[in-house]
Formats: sequence, C-alpha cells, structure tokens
Amino acid sequence: MPKFGELSSVQKLYGLAQEPIDLTKKGVATPKRIDKYLTEAMNVRLFYGMERVDDKVLDALFELASETEAMEKMQAMQAGEVVNKIEGVESENRPALHTAMRDFFEGRVESAAASEATELAYAECEKLKAFLCEVDETERFTNLVQIGIGGSDLGPRAIYMGLKAFQKPGRTVHFISNVDPDDAAEVLHNITLSKTLFVIVSKSGTTLETRTNEEYVKERLKKAGLNPQKHLVAVTGKGSPMDDPDSYLRAFYIWDYVGGRYSATSMVGAVTLSFALGMDRFLDFLRGAQAMDKHARTAPPRENLPLTAALLGIWNRNFLNLPTLAIIPYSQALVRFPAHLQQLDMESNGKHIDKQGTRVDFETGPIIWGEPGTNGQHSFYQLIHQGTTIVPIEFIGFIESQNNEDVVYQGTSCQEKLLSNLFAQSIALAVGEKSENPNKNFEGNRPNSVLLASRLDPYTLGALLAFYEHKVDFQGFIWDINSFDQEGVQLGKVLALKIVDQFATKRSGKPIDEKSFPLGHAYLKHL
Amino acid sequence: MPKFGELSSVQKLYGLAQEPIDLTKKGVATPKRIDKYLTEAMNVRLFYGMERVDDKVLDALFELASETEAMEKMQAMQAGEVVNKIEGVESENRPALHTAMRDFFEGRVESAAASEATELAYAECEKLKAFLCEVDETERFTNLVQIGIGGSDLGPRAIYMGLKAFQKPGRTVHFISNVDPDDAAEVLHNITLSKTLFVIVSKSGTTLETRTNEEYVKERLKKAGLNPQKHLVAVTGKGSPMDDPDSYLRAFYIWDYVGGRYSATSMVGAVTLSFALGMDRFLDFLRGAQAMDKHARTAPPRENLPLTAALLGIWNRNFLNLPTLAIIPYSQALVRFPAHLQQLDMESNGKHIDKQGTRVDFETGPIIWGEPGTNGQHSFYQLIHQGTTIVPIEFIGFIESQNNEDVVYQGTSCQEKLLSNLFAQSIALAVGEKSENPNKNFEGNRPNSVLLASRLDPYTLGALLAFYEHKVDFQGFIWDINSFDQEGVQLGKVLALKIVDQFATKRSGKPIDEKSFPLGHAYLKHL
Repeated sequence: MPKFGELSSVQKLYGLAQEPIDLTKKGVATPKRIDKYLTEAMNVRLFYGMERVDDKVLDALFELASETEAMEKMQAMQAGEVVNKIEGVESENRPALHTAMRDFFEGRVESAAASEATELAYAECEKLKAFLCEVDETERFTNLVQIGIGGSDLGPRAIYMGLKAFQKPGRTVHFISNVDPDDAAEVLHNITLSKTLFVIVSKSGTTLETRTNEEYVKERLKKAGLNPQKHLVAVTGKGSPMDDPDSYLRAFYIWDYVGGRYSATSMVGAVTLSFALGMDRFLDFLRGAQAMDKHARTAPPRENLPLTAALLGIWNRNFLNLPTLAIIPYSQALVRFPAHLQQLDMESNGKHIDKQGTRVDFETGPIIWGEPGTNGQHSFYQLIHQGTTIVPIEFIGFIESQNNEDVVYQGTSCQEKLLSNLFAQSIALAVGEKSENPNKNFEGNRPNSVLLASRLDPYTLGALLAFYEHKVDFQGFIWDINSFDQEGVQLGKVLALKIVDQFATKRSGKPIDEKSFPLGHAYLKHL
Repeated sequence: MPKFGELSSVQKLYGLAQEPIDLTKKGVATPKRIDKYLTEAMNVRLFYGMERVDDKVLDALFELASETEAMEKMQAMQAGEVVNKIEGVESENRPALHTAMRDFFEGRVESAAASEATELAYAECEKLKAFLCEVDETERFTNLVQIGIGGSDLGPRAIYMGLKAFQKPGRTVHFISNVDPDDAAEVLHNITLSKTLFVIVSKSGTTLETRTNEEYVKERLKKAGLNPQKHLVAVTGKGSPMDDPDSYLRAFYIWDYVGGRYSATSMVGAVTLSFALGMDRFLDFLRGAQAMDKHARTAPPRENLPLTAALLGIWNRNFLNLPTLAIIPYSQALVRFPAHLQQLDMESNGKHIDKQGTRVDFETGPIIWGEPGTNGQHSFYQLIHQGTTIVPIEFIGFIESQNNEDVVYQGTSCQEKLLSNLFAQSIALAVGEKSENPNKNFEGNRPNSVLLASRLDPYTLGALLAFYEHKVDFQGFIWDINSFDQEGVQLGKVLALKIVDQFATKRSGKPIDEKSFPLGHAYLKHL
C-alpha cells in the first residue's frame, strides 16, 4: 500500500487546500448548506456545514477512506484481527477488541475471535450482576470509590458524571487517581469507610499510582478497625498479582486486547457505573455503544458518522494545518468528557511512526482540549474568535436537558438559551463579521461541526463514546499508524523509578548514588 | 516604537532559532545546566534548564524585554496608567488595576490612581469582614453557592479547590456557572437551601447566564418558603441593576478597571474564599499575590520570575513555532488551575491586532491546556513524548503535600513518588532516548520548565496566581497588544440573542421570523 503522502486522494487534497472554501463570502454559508452537510444515525446528527469543505473536498476525503481501506480495517478490528502491531519490530501483536465488551445485543459480529471475547465479557457481566444483587440486598455499601488512573479513571469518571442525573438514590461515587497523597486524603475526608466499597482497577496489577493508593486505603481501613478484604474489589487481568481472593471480595477480569483508554464499557467502567446507575441503565449504555459499533462497520461511508468526522478531522489537521481540536459540549454533565477524549485521541494517535515502523512525514493526532459551553464563551473563546491560531471545534449539544428542571426568564428557558449560544457560536466562528474597527473585526473561517442528540441519557452517551472511539480508530487506519499501543509513556516511567530509588536511599539514611541518575539528582538535591 | 518584527532582538532571535540548542546531544543537558538556569523568589523556584535556550538566546530575550520596555510598562500598569486601549479607535480606555485589589501590605505602589483603587478595595474588605463576623456569630449559613461565569467562576473555583485543605470545618462551597439548567439542578440537589448563602457575581449586573441562574435559584427559594433577599449577596459594579438592597442582603463592589479574568483577588473571589477559609487565610492569599506584584515591577529582569517565564514562552511561541502550552500541576488540588490559566492567558493574549490597531504578522497567545500530573502521564503524554506536534510544558510542583497524610509503600512516600515523576518527565521530554526499535525511540527536545514551591498554602497560591497574571501581562507588553479587553466575545453574544428571540417567538406560539436570522433558523428548525 502506498504511503499517505503518495495516495492520489492526498495529492488532490493538498491541491484543494490551496484555496479552501471561504465561508465568509456572501452566499456561501446559507441555510441550505446547513441542511446539506448533515448526517444522522441513532438520533445523533452531525452538522458539518460550518467546516471548510465543499463537494470536491468531500469526494477526495471519501476517496481517501476508500484508498486506505478504512471500512475494511474497521470490520477487521471488530472481528478480532491483530491490528495492534508494528511490522518488523517487537510490538504488542494482538487484537483491539473493545467492541466485543458490549456486543451482547442484536446484530453481533460473528467471527470466532470476537465471539469468544464477547462470551468472556458477558460472563463477567453476569458475575457482576450477582455481586450487585448481593450489595442491593444487604445494603452493605452505599459509597463506592474507584481507584485507577488513566483509562481506569478518565472514561468511567466522565461517564459517571455524564449520567449522574440517573443515579440510584442514596449512593455516592468518588474517584482516586493521582499518586499525590492529597487526592486520596480529600476523598477519604468525605466518606464513611464502613459503608464504602473500593474498586481497584489495574490490568497488570502493578500500576504504581493505583497500588500505592490501594495501600493508602488499606491502612485507613485497618486503622478504622475494618478488614480491607471485605471492602476491596479488584478489576484486573486473570492471573495478575491482584487476582487474589485473599485480598479482594471479588475479582472481575479484563483482557490485554482491551486498551485502557477503550475500556469504559468493560469491567473497568462496569462495576462503578452499574453500582451507581443500576444494571439496566448500564446495559442501555452498552446498547448505545454497540449500535454505534455496528453503524461504524456497516453504514455506507457517506452516511457513516464516525468515518465522516474522522475525515473532516484529517482535512483540518493535514491539509488546513490546524494543530489542535477543541471539543466543547454544551452540557455541564459532560464536564469531564473532553478529558476522556483527550486521552482516547492523544494516546491513540499521538504517534510518530507508521505500522511499518517508518517515521511519518505528515502530522498525526492533534492536541485535544475543551471545556463545556457556555462557560468557555466567557473564557478562551476570545482566542478562538480573534487569535492568530485557528482552532477547529466539535460542538456537542442536546435538545432536552437531563433533569427537566428549568425556569423561563425573559421569555425563554435555560435550555433554549443554551442551544441558542451553541448555534450562534457555530455560525459566528465560521462566518465572522467585517468591521471598520479592527478590534471588532471577526475574520471567520473557523471551522466547526455540531453533534446534536435528543437528550443525554445512558444509550446516547454509549453511542457518543463509541462514536469517538471509532473516529479515532478510523483516523489511525487512514494514517496507517497503530492506535492501540502507548510506547511513549515508557521512558518517563523508567526514569521516575530511578528517582524513586534515590528517594528510597535518602530515606534509609544512606548517601544517594548520584551517578545512578545524575540529572534526577540535580533536581532532587534542591529539595 | 518599531513593530515586533523590526526589533533588533527579534531579528537576532529568528537567527538563533535556526539552530536551537540540542538537549539530546551528549554533554548538553547536565546537572550543571539545571543549577544554572534557575531563578528564585518568594520560595518559588523556576527551573528552566530543560528549555531550548542558551546564553545567547537569553541575552537576546532580555534585550527584547528592554527594547519593548516591558518593565516600564509593568510599573505603569501597576501605577494605574491607561493601559487598556487601542490607539485611534473606540476602545475601553482605562487602567488595569487588579494589583490594587491586594496592595494592602508593605511596599505599596504610591501613585494616586493606584492608591485610590486600593483604598476602595480595602473598604470592601472591611465591609466583608463585618458581614462574615455576623455570619459566624449567627451561624445562619453553612453553605455557600457562588453563581458567576468566566472570570467570576474559574479563578475563585480554582483557588477554592486549591485551598480546600484549609477550609473551615462545617462549611461547604459550590459553584453554578453554566446556563445549562442541569448545572444548577445538580448543585441544588445536594444542599439545604435554608442554610445557604448565594453569591451572585456580575460586574455589569446583566450577564445572561448569571442572571438566569439567579432567577432559577430565587424560584427554588420561594418554593421552599424562603425569602430570596435574605439569601442573596451581590458582587457587582456600583449602580448596576444588581446594586439593589431590596433584592440582596449586601452588595460588594468591583470596578471596571479590574477585568473578570484578573478579579480573583477582588470581591469576586473574596466573599467565597473568606467564607470558606476565614479572613486571615484569605489575607495570606492576598499577601502572596502582592509580594509577587512587587517582585514583578521591581526585581531586575534576569531575577524576575514572571518576566523570565514570559520570555521563555515567547521563544517557544514565536521562534520555535510551538502553538500550544501545557500547564501541568503535580498537585491534585490544582485540578482546575489550568482552566483558570486558560482563560487568563487566552482571553488576554488571543488577539490579532496590536495597540495601534494594526493586524499583527506574528503569533500572539498560544492555546493553553493541561491536567494534573501524574494523571496526564497515563493520558496525553503519549503524544507529548512521541507525537508530531511538540508541546512545551510548564510543570508546577510542591515539596510537601497539603494534608501531610501519606503512606510509605515500597520504601517511599506518595509525595516522593509524585516528585520523582515530575522530575523524570522534565528530563525524559528534553533528553529523549535513542532506540533501534523506532517505536521505542524518543526524539527529545520537548522544552519544559519546572515551578517548584514548598507547599500549596494560601500565600503560595496567591504568589502563583499573580505570577501567571504578570507572565501574561509581560507577554502582552512585549507583543504590544492589549491584554485587557475581550472584543472577540461580542459577536457570539449578539447572534445568540437573535436565536433566543426566535425561541421566544416560537414559545409564544407565533410564527418565527426566519429572516431575522436565517442561519440561526437553519439550525433551530431541526429541533
């Protein structure tokens, strides 16, 4: 297969990018355009009329998808082919089967590898269901604290916050992630230990932060006269150091073919989310994700939501040369969703070699950031409207609020004001406004799209989560990079352990061996 | 004064940027270098040995500060000169006197304008002190909810979270900002209204989100049989629609010469922070900020912390062409500090014209983003280490934890592990590591600096807040842009009101006038 830069569609796109459509020109950004550039599936609509694309650009983008066999790769991934690998060098060499974690409903993937993974995942769900029945009946636990970091924290936390409006009464959920001791201290100040279940999440069973926080919690439980084993549940790989009934009430399993950042629908998210929401709502969440999985692998390219979004992102990144992407949910409940997507995208596609091990000569994953609107409007939107670096935006909005508690003030509800702001920003950024006063001049041509759904409920959030997973996966397929490993996090870990050793030596009263890591010591000696 | 591109220092810097120092080369990143590139003030140390600078670059950068009269402009700003203006066009034309809000201690600015502003601010502090004594004595309020958005939310919220470890027992603080009705609903589900004080913050007294949320809260109070006037405090401009004793228990004043994003040390932050922490700790916080103000205007350039940081930022932005800046506190308590700094920096310096009204031909403020470490290490650090876009980083760390509750696990404390990770990342990003396996290759030369302080206490956080304010101000002075207005947020507001009107018409049962805003209607009709 030719390299990215040699593809005929890519050549075309470089040409087209010399003069992208000017959305500020009279007669370009019309109501018709908003209706035309619109795709819908599962009640989620993607409006992309405010992106700097026209029919020629879209033709070339879908040609790019076809040239790179993006759809075939999506099908292969969901079927359990070994997609997590780099040719010719040592690499993880395994499938990426996050979609199998929720393939419990109609229209399943039929391959042997995927079916096997789905069966294993389903068995864990059944175990969990039984465990939660017990919890419900005995009312032993009213609080749950999830201890994990990265994918074992960001996804479950974002989804929990996104669906807190649906929480079962009388339950509280907290998260501890950071090795900073103030993180655990702050959480433990606010809960009754005797009624608390701690869910410790680490696939390898060796994550430094997580095991350290587990130790912290165990000490606190012991001090309170409680038996840690009766309060701890493990979510871990089978056979890991945490797969140990002497230390945990239960162990729920996860597998190496589900990456941390793709694990929210596995047991990594399941225990906490079903404790908080109840199993039925958790299954609705999985149902939404599975429907999007099926859509991603079967919908024709031009009707395919995540593929379309992936291509628009590639247009902005590789051809309009925009280095970042802001994801702005007009929904306070999604306050931590951008942080999850930041990991999902940047850890998956922040890569510098392709799947043949060659240094790429084009840009891969952008920097992802974002905060909810309307808040952001009173914060960083100044730069977005008038700064020197153009920021493409993906807006997310919902027609109805979650709580249906609203107030009419000056003739409209809060929800109507919220949506008015979302739509207004989409238009203002793209169309701009000329002014004689240079300080009131808006150059426009800030590309953006709007994802609009009916209401943020479990099903919809499942679909949105999977939408972003597949958008990221499609981009990885098209760039021909491996979206499923994370070798880039290793060096920091190795060097950190060297400094940890220096601290340990210092603590034991012996002289530190500077030479073991002179640069580490150069910082350390200033403490 | 010559334009930025014509300055002799800028010419030199463009030349030097052709071949910036290579931190991965043997013998470059040495312990000596870490000791050498280090500045300290008020117990805050700035390590910048892992930035891609050498003595020549630093000479040229400080020449840039001198050519642009950065120090003189800082002194002028603090003295109350009219720095918020654009020549030749209509603009706000006023001073930027955030430093006067805390100039209550030794070594004050002596100009008449600054002194007058300080006296007014001090009078509000005295009013607040009396009010809080009453609250303490009567124990009427145990909960406080701050309602504001943008600068009336992000700064106070970030600082409150940063100092929650110092909170007075028995008090809770919440924030409502978003016009999303789910934001207020979620907060109000969790508090006892009868014991709650609501602080409504809007300088103009007309902020849509804030007044709408106030209305929401008033309805809820009335429904609960409570008199809103007895539960509401206003923080607003004198004479604004909110300066009204019939509606509020008290009004505390702010002034138009303090921008929202610079207002955390004014009454905008004062009411909530002193309710939560007590007045003494709030004054300590102001003391730290004032000490940094004095340092910023009087310390020699090469010993000046915010000036040095500003210049390093300009080197990365304008000469190494790096479009973003990640701010990563290794402190969970600072979880929302990057969101505040995002507003502070991007709203101040995300500008496209200079103070003469000319379109700039260089880059201004970068995109600011960040999450706490070590969490980020398990999230976006993959891209930072191995992505195709280089991200400069400002790390923030503390020698001691806040709570002093820690556990020794495998020979070191959590705090020691936290610091080990911070230092290791600083080194790994700069120095990199060669590997035969291209997937394990780290190219290095990712520039970063480390701000290290003793402990995150009120004084230190005050100093850090002011450090960033002055870093941003110095960059604005050097770029010759106006860091104190925000015309870029206007267009979106205007268009939002047009759609709000269409919603109001729809709600009243009349046909919507499409022509009043056809593009707005194009979105609206899909609901």
